[in-house]
Order: sequence, then C-alpha cells, then structure tokens
Amino acid sequence: MSKRKIAVVITARPSYSRVKTVLQAIQKHPDLELQLIVAASALLDRYGSAVNYMLQDGFEIAAKVFNVLEGENLTAAAKTTGIGILELSTVFENLKPDIVVTVADRFETMATAIAASYMNIPLAHIQGGEVTGNIDEKVRHAITKLSDYHFTASESARERVIKLGENPDFVFNTGCPSIDIAAEVLKNPELGFNPYEKYGGVGEQPDLTNGYVVVMQHPVTTEYQDSRKHIHETLNILPHIKLPVLWFWPNVDAGADGTSAGIRSFREHHDLTHVHFFKNMTGDDFLRLLKNSKCLIGNSSVGIRECAFLGVPVVNIGSRQNKRDRGYNVIDVTYDTDEILQAVNQQINKKTIESSNVYGGGNAGAVIANLLATVPLQFHKTINY
Amino acid sequence: MSKRKIAVVITARPSYSRVKTVLQAIQKHPDLELQLIVAASALLDRYGSAVNYMLQDGFEIAAKVFNVLEGENLTAAAKTTGIGILELSTVFENLKPDIVVTVADRFETMATAIAASYMNIPLAHIQGGEVTGNIDEKVRHAITKLSDYHFTASESARERVIKLGENPDFVFNTGCPSIDIAAEVLKNPELGFNPYEKYGGVGEQPDLTNGYVVVMQHPVTTEYQDSRKHIHETLNILPHIKLPVLWFWPNVDAGADGTSAGIRSFREHHDLTHVHFFKNMTGDDFLRLLKNSKCLIGNSSVGIRECAFLGVPVVNIGSRQNKRDRGYNVIDVTYDTDEILQAVNQQINKKTIESSNVYGGGNAGAVIANLLATVPLQFHKTINY
Amino acid sequence: MSKRKIAVVITARPSYSRVKTVLQAIQKHPDLELQLIVAASALLDRYGSAVNYMLQDGFEIAAKVFNVLEGENLTAAAKTTGIGILELSTVFENLKPDIVVTVADRFETMATAIAASYMNIPLAHIQGGEVTGNIDEKVRHAITKLSDYHFTASESARERVIKLGENPDFVFNTGCPSIDIAAEVLKNPELGFNPYEKYGGVGEQPDLTNGYVVVMQHPVTTEYQDSRKHIHETLNILPHIKLPVLWFWPNVDAGADGTSAGIRSFREHHDLTHVHFFKNMTGDDFLRLLKNSKCLIGNSSVGIRECAFLGVPVVNIGSRQNKRDRGYNVIDVTYDTDEILQAVNQQINKKTIESSNVYGGGNAGAVIANLLATVPLQFHKTINY
Amino acid sequence: MSKRKIAVVITARPSYSRVKTVLQAIQKHPDLELQLIVAASALLDRYGSAVNYMLQDGFEIAAKVFNVLEGENLTAAAKTTGIGILELSTVFENLKPDIVVTVADRFETMATAIAASYMNIPLAHIQGGEVTGNIDEKVRHAITKLSDYHFTASESARERVIKLGENPDFVFNTGCPSIDIAAEVLKNPELGFNPYEKYGGVGEQPDLTNGYVVVMQHPVTTEYQDSRKHIHETLNILPHIKLPVLWFWPNVDAGADGTSAGIRSFREHHDLTHVHFFKNMTGDDFLRLLKNSKCLIGNSSVGIRECAFLGVPVVNIGSRQNKRDRGYNVIDVTYDTDEILQAVNQQINKKTIESSNVYGGGNAGAVIANLLATVPLQFHKTINY
Repeated sequence: MSKRKIAVVITARPSYSRVKTVLQAIQKHPDLELQLIVAASALLDRYGSAVNYMLQDGFEIAAKVFNVLEGENLTAAAKTTGIGILELSTVFENLKPDIVVTVADRFETMATAIAASYMNIPLAHIQGGEVTGNIDEKVRHAITKLSDYHFTASESARERVIKLGENPDFVFNTGCPSIDIAAEVLKNPELGFNPYEKYGGVGEQPDLTNGYVVVMQHPVTTEYQDSRKHIHETLNILPHIKLPVLWFWPNVDAGADGTSAGIRSFREHHDLTHVHFFKNMTGDDFLRLLKNSKCLIGNSSVGIRECAFLGVPVVNIGSRQNKRDRGYNVIDVTYDTDEILQAVNQQINKKTIESSNVYGGGNAGAVIANLLATVPLQFHKTINY
Repeated sequence: MSKRKIAVVITARPSYSRVKTVLQAIQKHPDLELQLIVAASALLDRYGSAVNYMLQDGFEIAAKVFNVLEGENLTAAAKTTGIGILELSTVFENLKPDIVVTVADRFETMATAIAASYMNIPLAHIQGGEVTGNIDEKVRHAITKLSDYHFTASESARERVIKLGENPDFVFNTGCPSIDIAAEVLKNPELGFNPYEKYGGVGEQPDLTNGYVVVMQHPVTTEYQDSRKHIHETLNILPHIKLPVLWFWPNVDAGADGTSAGIRSFREHHDLTHVHFFKNMTGDDFLRLLKNSKCLIGNSSVGIRECAFLGVPVVNIGSRQNKRDRGYNVIDVTYDTDEILQAVNQQINKKTIESSNVYGGGNAGAVIANLLATVPLQFHKTINY
Repeated sequence: MSKRKIAVVITARPSYSRVKTVLQAIQKHPDLELQLIVAASALLDRYGSAVNYMLQDGFEIAAKVFNVLEGENLTAAAKTTGIGILELSTVFENLKPDIVVTVADRFETMATAIAASYMNIPLAHIQGGEVTGNIDEKVRHAITKLSDYHFTASESARERVIKLGENPDFVFNTGCPSIDIAAEVLKNPELGFNPYEKYGGVGEQPDLTNGYVVVMQHPVTTEYQDSRKHIHETLNILPHIKLPVLWFWPNVDAGADGTSAGIRSFREHHDLTHVHFFKNMTGDDFLRLLKNSKCLIGNSSVGIRECAFLGVPVVNIGSRQNKRDRGYNVIDVTYDTDEILQAVNQQINKKTIESSNVYGGGNAGAVIANLLATVPLQFHKTINY
Repeated sequence: MSKRKIAVVITARPSYSRVKTVLQAIQKHPDLELQLIVAASALLDRYGSAVNYMLQDGFEIAAKVFNVLEGENLTAAAKTTGIGILELSTVFENLKPDIVVTVADRFETMATAIAASYMNIPLAHIQGGEVTGNIDEKVRHAITKLSDYHFTASESARERVIKLGENPDFVFNTGCPSIDIAAEVLKNPELGFNPYEKYGGVGEQPDLTNGYVVVMQHPVTTEYQDSRKHIHETLNILPHIKLPVLWFWPNVDAGADGTSAGIRSFREHHDLTHVHFFKNMTGDDFLRLLKNSKCLIGNSSVGIRECAFLGVPVVNIGSRQNKRDRGYNVIDVTYDTDEILQAVNQQINKKTIESSNVYGGGNAGAVIANLLATVPLQFHKTINY
C-alpha cells in the first residue's frame, strides 16, 4: 500500500519550532510521506528565515512560496493571505497530498485552510480551540470550521472545538508538540552554548553567569496604533533591571513597524550596557535559554505553554495570551511599566516552580503522526447540532 | 454627522436577487451610503451577468472585480477566492467602508469576509447559521466566525449562530430579504409577461396557459464527479412529464461542466418539444413565474425559502438543501428518476399550500438597514464560552 | 557534468503542436533535462486540453499552473498574465531551470518572459521577429526585448530581431519546429484514420472520400467587437460549398465569445448536412488532414507555415497573418463572403502547389536543442546600437 | 467635449520627483483630467512614502495599490509585477482612462504597461530609448514595444526608439520633466532650509557652511551578490573625506539588503562624525542641496540628468548609468575606493561647470501635457520595418 502523503505548511519561525516533533514523527512513520511546504515569513531573512533551520534539521523542502506582501499593515495581511491561497492551490495541485496540516492561528495560515478545504483535501488543524481575544481568535475558530481533524493542545481546547459543532470523534487532545521539545530539554537542561557567539545579534554582551531575564514581545494585531506605546511600557523597565536582559526581535505582523520602531528609537536614546538583542534562535536553544533564565517577560505563547512545563517564571503582558490555560508559572500584567517591573521582581526571586502538564506530556508529535496515518480520509462534514 | 458607508459585495446573480431589498433599504436610509461592489460570476455573461440587472434597478456600481479563475474545478474555486481577497483588499483600501456586508455561503464570499475582517472593518453576514451538509457549510460557519454582526433568515439559524460562540447581542433573526420580494409578488401575483419574449433562451416554446413546471438544479460541489450522473436522473423525467417544462441553466460552481454537459448532450439526443431553457430571469419575474407554476423541481434554495412563503409545491432533489428549515411545501427526494417523477406527480395535483413565515415576514431589508445604521462599530470579539 | 535544466512553458494547444519536436529533442539530448510546465488554456477542457496529448506523447509534467481568468475580455487577458507571473515565479523558484523557453506571441506567454528575465534566468524565445499587426505583435517584440536567445522561423524574422537591437550572435534562424512534424507527415502522407471516430465532435458526418475543405478561424484580439461579424462572413460561404467542411473550434482569446456565439447561432438556424465540428486534433493528425484536403480556410498560422511546406492551398482571411512570409500556397482575402468564396473555388481547383522552405526544412527541433545545450548561460545584455 | 482622462501610475519616489511637472501640467490643462494612481514602493514608509509628498503638493489620489512582495530578491520583483498587473487591470477597468502614462524603467512599471496595452488603452511612455546595460534596459525597451506614444528625454533616446521600429510620428523628444524642476531651482538657487531640521535622519550633524558632498548609491539589480561589496568600496572613502557627507538611503530593489546591510554594518564599526544619513527629501529640496554641494557621488540618474543642467560635479560609480548621454559634469569610475576618492578630489576642486541642455530645457511637463491632449487615441500599431 502506498504511503499517505502529508503536506505540512509552515509559514513562520515559531510555527516551525512548535511542530518540529510532528514533522520528525511523520518523517519516521512507515506509512507516511512528508511534504514540507515553506511559505510567508518562514522564508524571509529579517524574521530569522526558518527555512535554514529546517535544512539543518535534515528536512527536505517540497515547495517554497514567497507570499508576504509588504506594508506591515492590515491590508498587507489580507493580501498576503490571498496570494497564499492562489499559490498553495497550485502547490497542492502538483503535490497531490492526502492530508494537509495547518498550524495554529497566524493570519496567513487561513490560506492553507482555504486552499485545502476548497480542493476537497482532508485538513488537519493543530492547536485549535484556544481563546485569546484578538484577530488570531477569529482566524483560529474559522480554521476550525474548515478543518476535518483537530489536534488540540489542552483538554479545555478540545471541549471548545466540540462546542463549535465539530464531531467529537475527530477532535483529539494530543497535547502541544512544542512540549515534546521542552521534555527533551528537561532531560538535560544545561545551557551548553554561548548565545552571543552562536547567534550574534547586536548590543552589549553582559555576563550571564549570575542569571538573566529574557524579553519577547510581539505587536498585537487589532491594536495596531498602540503597538509603539505598548512596547514603550516594557522598554521603560530596562533602566530598573540589574540582571542582564536578552531581548528577542518580534516576528512579522501588522503593527511590527510600531514595535520595531519603538525598540530602535529607545536604543538610540539610551545607554543599554546590560541588554543584548537577538533576531532568533533554534527552538531547542531558546528553551534551554529560558530554562536557565530567571524570568521571561512579554507576550509570547512560549511563556504560557513551554514555560508551564519547564517551570520557568513568566511575566505575561497584555491581552495576547488572554484566556489561554495557565500552569503555575505566570503573573499577568497590563501594559504598565510599574506593574511589569513589580511582577518581574516577584518572579526573579522565586526558587522553583512546579511543572504542569496542562499543554501535554511530551509525546504529541508521535500521537499526531499516528492519527494522521489512521484517521479515515474525509472532507465532508456537517455541524454537530 | 457623516453617513455610514456600507459596502455590499455581490458575487453571483442569486445573491443579488436575495439581498436586493437590503440594497434598496440602505440606499434609502438617511444615515447610510451604499457602496455596491460587483465581483466574480455576477460580472460574467454566461451566468446571466447580474450587473446589468443592478444598473437597470438604478444602482450605481462603486467597483467591479473580475476574479473567476477558469477551470470549473476545485482548484479554480480556491484560486478565485485568493484573487478575490487580493483585489477586494485594494477596493476596501480605496473605498474605506465603515461596515462590509457579505451574503450567504458561496465559496468566493469567503474572500469578502477575510479581506474585511483582516483589515479590521466590521463585517456583517447575511444568512449564517444554516445547515446543508456540503462545502457551503464549511464556508458558511467559517464566515460566521469572522463576522461581527449576524442577520439570520430563521430562528433556528439564529440559535445555531449563538451555539457557535457568537455574542447573542449581535445575532439578529431578521428573516431572509428574499422573502421581501416574495411578499411584493404576493400582493399582485399575476405572471404579467411572456417569458419567451422577455428572456429569450433556447428550445421550443410550449403554451403555458394550462400550467407548467420549473426546473433549476445546481451541481453540488463536493460531489463533482457525480454531477453529470445527478443531472441525468432529473433529465430522465422529461419524457414522462406532460406539462411544459421551463428549465433554468445552473450557475457557476465546480461541477458545472458535468451538469451543463449533461444537459447539452440530453438535448442533442432527445426531441424536447415541451421544454424551454432559460439562462436567467430577474428575481421578481422568477418568483412570479414560480407562483404561477404547478411545481418547482431541483435543488435551488428558492424552493425552500421563497416558495415556503409563496406556497409553491417543490420537489427538492438530493443533499444541497439538507437540514434547512422547511415550510409546508417541500417533498424531498434522492437522485432517482422514479422518485423524482412520483413526487412531481404528487405535487402538481395539490390544490393549495399554506404560506409559512419560517424565513421571515417580508421586511428583512428595512430591518437590516436599520441595524447597519445603529449597531456599534466593532471588529474585536472573543468566543462566547 | 550535470545536465542543463530546460524549462519549457506551454500555455495553449497550438503552441504544443508547434514545439513538440523541440520537446522531443530536449528529452533525447544527453546534456539536457526537460522541465515541462503546462499552464493557461493548455489545461482547460474547453480548448481541447493539450495536457492529455502531452501525457499520451510520453512527456512528464513538472508543474501545472491554472491561470486563465474568466471573462474572455481584455481585462481578463491582462489578469491572466499577472497571475501567470505570480505563479510561474514560484515554479521557477522551485524547479531552478538553467534556461527557460517561451513560445511565440500569445498574450499570456509574456508571463513566462517576465518571470524568467526578472529572475535572471536566461530566456530563449521561439518564433520572434514576425509581423502580424495586432496585439500579438506588441507582445512578440516585447518578448524579444526580454529574451537572451532567439530561435526564429525564417530569415526575414531573424533580420527583424537583429534590427530590434539584439546581438546577432544569439539570433538563430532555426526554422519553425512545426515544419519538423510536417516533414514527417510528408514521408507518409496517407490520412490513415477516421476523424469522426477518433475525435468525435458534433454535427453531420459527410463522406470525405471525394475531398473536403477545412476551416479554422480565430477571433482577432484588437477587433473584439467585430469577431462575431467576421465569423459570419465565413459562415455564409457554407451553403455555397459542395464539398464536406471540417470546422475547428477557435482557441481561447478575447473575442472568443463573439466567434463561438456566431458559430452556435448559425448552427441553430441552418441545416448543415455537410459540416462537422471538431474541438481539436493532435498536430500530427491535423497536418495529415490538411495534406489530404482541397483547401484550408481561415486565419490560422498553420496555413501560412506548415501548409507552405506541405503545399496545401490556403484561403487566408483578414489581418491576423499580415506580413508573415508566404510560400506559394496562399490567397489572401478580407472578411467578405464573396471574396472568400471566390478564393476557395480557385484553390480547390488547383492540381499541386510547390513546397516551400521559407519556414525551415524540418530539423528545427534538433537544431534548437543543440543550441540550448551549447549557448553560454547569460541574462545580461544591452541594445546593439 | 469631455476631458481626456489621463491615468499616471507612480510606483516609486524618484519617479514621482521625475514627473511632478507633468502631473501639474495635466492638472492645469483645460482638456485633461488627471487620474493619479500610486502603487508599489511609492506607498511604503521605508522607502520614504512618496504618497505623502503628493498629498502635500495638492494632488488627489484616484487609487492606491499595495503590491510589493517581500523578499528583496529577484523572485519578489517578478511577483510584485504580477500582482501589479492583476490589480492595475481592475483599477483601469473602474477608472476607464483614455490614456495611461508609465514612467521610465523600474521593473514594476512593466505592470502598468501590460495592463494598459492588453486592455487596448493607449499607452504613453516617458523616458524610453535610453541605454544602461542592466535589467532596467530589458524592461525599458520591452515597454517601448508595448507603448503607443514615446516622450524621450534626449535626442539620442528618440533616435533609438525609432530604430526599435516605432513610428517616428509618435516619438517625441520632449526633454526630461525632471529638468523642469531643476530649471525652477536655478532661478533661485539658495539652499534656504536646514536639512537636519526639515528631514531628520540619523547620525551626526556636521556644519555645512563650508561645503559638503552628497552620496546616493543604489544596488544594481543584476549584480545582486555583489551589492554589499560595491557599497563597501564607496563607504571606504569616508575616512579620507574632510568635507561633511550627506548620505541618502537606497530605494527598493533586489539587492537592497546587501547595500543597506553594508551601510548599517559600516556605521556600527566606524566613528562617522562628519556623516549624516537621510531617508529621502522632496525633489525640489534635493536639487537645491545638490546645487549647493561640491559633488554628488554614487550611481543615481540625478547625477547624469539634473546635475548636467545644474552644472553640479558628479562622480558616477559603476555600470548603472552606462551609455546614458553625459553633460559636462561627470567623471565615471569603477567600484574601487582609490578611483572614487581620486575623482572626488578632482571634482571638489573645480570652480564651475557649464550647464547642458542634453536632457531638455525645462518645459517638458507642459509639452507632454499638450501632446497627451492632442495625439490621436490609438492602440494598434505594427513594427516600422
């Protein structure tokens, strides 16, 4: 019997990190053939071209699709999605996958969902059913309604997908595949590399041996106008932090201009001897860096998910991770310098934080690959009420 | 105070008929300005270019967008949607509407929904919450998840939209605007025109004075391969029907080739002296024609909606209208010549059928326009559970 | 040394017929690898899907690109080209050809030329330098200015390309590859098949044993409004022709609606017992059919090229083939029933017509493949004056 | 009689500066109506959004089209052009211009040329016939072959367009409209503004009262790999120049990454107390700045054109302006620090340079507007040999 062809479309660096163990499990599975498609910001240097990591990790690229329209505004987001549909249709037409897999809730992943579902190719969605309260959420639930199989990261997400009218037989709480990597890291949690040497970046290179904090703050799409103001509230804590700060550049989104401009301007006007800026890092190294840090500050989902499992203290800023399940490691704050600073001080003084399985136990990749190999192929569904 | 600009995107002839009274009510409303955008098959001659009817009806066209990709297969449907997003974004960028209105569940209406919601323009959806069990349904519910206001055609649809997690404050059972036209027709139900003279078409011109039946059968997207077989089961009843038959050409969809080819081939091999073929008709005239017919045969939603209100007997074939609310006028059958024929004979012998308000009472256009003038402008939402 | 990868983009059935021997010669060449890309109307059933012939002829398809925008108007032609560029760029990005080959002057071939030349992939153009006096000519000469190698069909075309400022070292009069097939046919000119059985089509099946004529008339792009009138002048000769008439459907172009509608309408209003309509035929069979015919009527370039070599009488109508080199076989007429009819009668009474080498001697495919294998790879050029 | 509608498509800041007087003359002309369409990098902040200058200058924008695909590689250039065609067709369909005007030779201007010529809208080309020896040249001559009217900047350009087979009746040496602005500046050549205050920028603010030099160096498309190396040769002169240096950021093109990265890296590793970096400037102010400078260094066409008229010394680096007509003001050098430095020293010691009319005498805008008002409307042409 011929292998099932599984097309996975990766459109951004963080999505790649999140599903890497799924890709590996598909590649290893005797009944599956992986068709890895790389598109959007995953191909672009200035967001830390994920495609190079994929090649280093031994994956073969079946097709590349450049579809990011410049503008970094909301119109550009819509158009990027339109171009994505146009081109992914051709890619699917030529690769003829049996199942297409789409990841999470970035605006441009809708392109994958529409191309596949309109072409009657069974569609699997990783990480549906979560609640965040921004444009991502519109996208995420709309993708759920186009998908035939759902691999959720938590039990509450599974329940929400079913409430959305999906057939419970095809909604699986597999846990989040990003936890698989965290589980590997926990087995051997040493940092084991010099981040400055391995990843370059700009700014000073403060000594990390006595601890450090990490910052990663993305713009929030529906608050475009405010993204510069938001980042400013976070930047303002820098003079008050004694520990070295490792700051990660935001990934592409409407609003990125505001965030990036804010950071650039702050750098020009302040003497930041204890801050270093990174563009990106492999998922593995990033988790190791977090595990050894005193605290993660920002609004990255890594703080909610992987850090829950790793037991890393997190100061989560603003609405981006609203209503997502929490482990024992998060303090939530608003966009307010004082509030952020107070929470950071609280977190960096904690001794240890209990690990939580709320986002899975570390075998999501294998579970998902097995499901992809065995679910009935189908693309015809009706609402469950 | 400046008027709210309401952009309505019409992508197909039947959608135009369905929302014509909404367009009129927006046009008349003192606080609203209509921006009528015509796209997709609504611009194409071979589907009975709706744009000409709009001009005749006194509407001004704010923008036209040609985006139907040829192929009449599923890939083309996806790509048509992609091009639609790309271009509608530009149209919205230039027209700057306050609210965008999208209609029903055709595959390409997703383009309107994505362009508007990604651009943070409040999105209103007419006719969400219905259940049909094909690709339309994936599309319809996905559009619901992207929309900010919902104008449903029935109470059960309203309930379903709320179950999908939408805020009940913005889900309104307005009834279907197509019933508004039916209500006008009922006030003066005479046919009042000669269909052959007014609409041309091809084939014989049988005498209609002693009654006639109407056929309108569209291909069903997810059963592409079978569309030719399906239409054949219906075509086979023709030799057994004594009454004149007025047959309407299907509108564009994946599968259209199979349906159209089936009709053409049947015509070449049979002597159809009692059958006439029309390409299209104004909504008004079509309802009048139905009101005076003995029976409508096929799978058009008109049979389920307007005919429920008009009390016209309908033989509804196959799965296309599955699970939609029924009035008192429908007999459902499968794709089977004998079954269809038997139901037709049963229906044409009925005296009268009671009118049903299940799809509204005839004032949906005005109700929707009022809501568009008064709802708070918003595009930020979260799931209701 | 690795083989040179030669991407040939075929966008229409007639283009495929024209360059088939080039494709075969590339495939056979020890230093070349063929990447056959099929796009536009070459994929569409209603223009006689060329892709099926390619598969039958043993070619493997490297990529398919659906890009024909519906409308059959001039806007659609522009948009088809735009989509073509967008998608062919991705195809080239993924296939990484060493040379791209584009054929002739159809509007959408500009997409191939732009994608390749903008991506710094050396571009070869088959059949530049000809003069016809319509939109094709703008396209053809613009493609010449984007191309790095030129394989012209005649000496006068070669001279014209050089006059356009191209470096004579890279302008080669290879002859037209379509003559290669004609040369094969001439070796064994028997018809050898029953066209009705092999190709179906519609209409009567008149007996062909005592001779027949062939008609193939395409709409002329820049005379869109007139295409229906033009075809009518030709259709009007039908009642006055005694010989069987084998009529070939036009290929896609702005204006096709007018031509097709004209033919359909004429069929409905006339009793055409001696006329049969074909959708398409393999190049081979078509040439055989022409070789055994009394005359070809219309405006196809086949009449000017292959028929010059085959010595088949041609009545060439209108401006489409204006200023192309002629052999000894052509009578040129305007869109005028009487003129056409008179020329047809003159031609069908001729005994033999001398073969002409004006479009090559029958080895163009091999010559072009050799050049593709040996020309220096380059994409940087400047005008020659 | 209704006014002729003239659509001018502006896709980049320098193009706007170049044709501003044409836009003004169209706007003032009693028989013309201006339809100003802004697209591509002219809309993007990071290339100094030209659209803001247009609004300040009192122009109304008829339509905006975002079509720059991200990637800054050659694939992105091709795709940007494809999207441009797709969308400009819609814009032309909705605006219905009588003539479309396209400017110069940027890769994406091909989109304007194809959309207009395919839609049978008469196309006018400003600045054809020039020779530069890179991808721009392929584009420029291809646009000439698609255009119906040609407004060249010099006599040698006019002759070249005619050699390309264009009808001499429609090839006009109008001079370059950029000279019109230079002519205005010459009437009152005082600097009259503080560039640091008016335009911000980054870096030190050296005193300009004793003279300064200006640098503007763009990447050269076909030498993508080398753009970083090229800019380095120029950057290396900085430590050896005593005068203040005003450096302008390059505009978007494949290769921009290399150039920009080179500049950024040099800034980080050198102490540049006499250098200031600008993003952009109005055409007017820029010419005034040049007129008062000791020398312009780089490869901008401004050095060849406007500076010829203004009599400003120029050190022109590399192949970008190859074969363009020269006034009396240019020293050409290769990418070599020593050569560049030597030429700069030679130029800054010159007293005065004679003004040249090679690119026109300062009335091109008015001449072109008059021609647009009076040329016969036509889109059908054939080659002139």
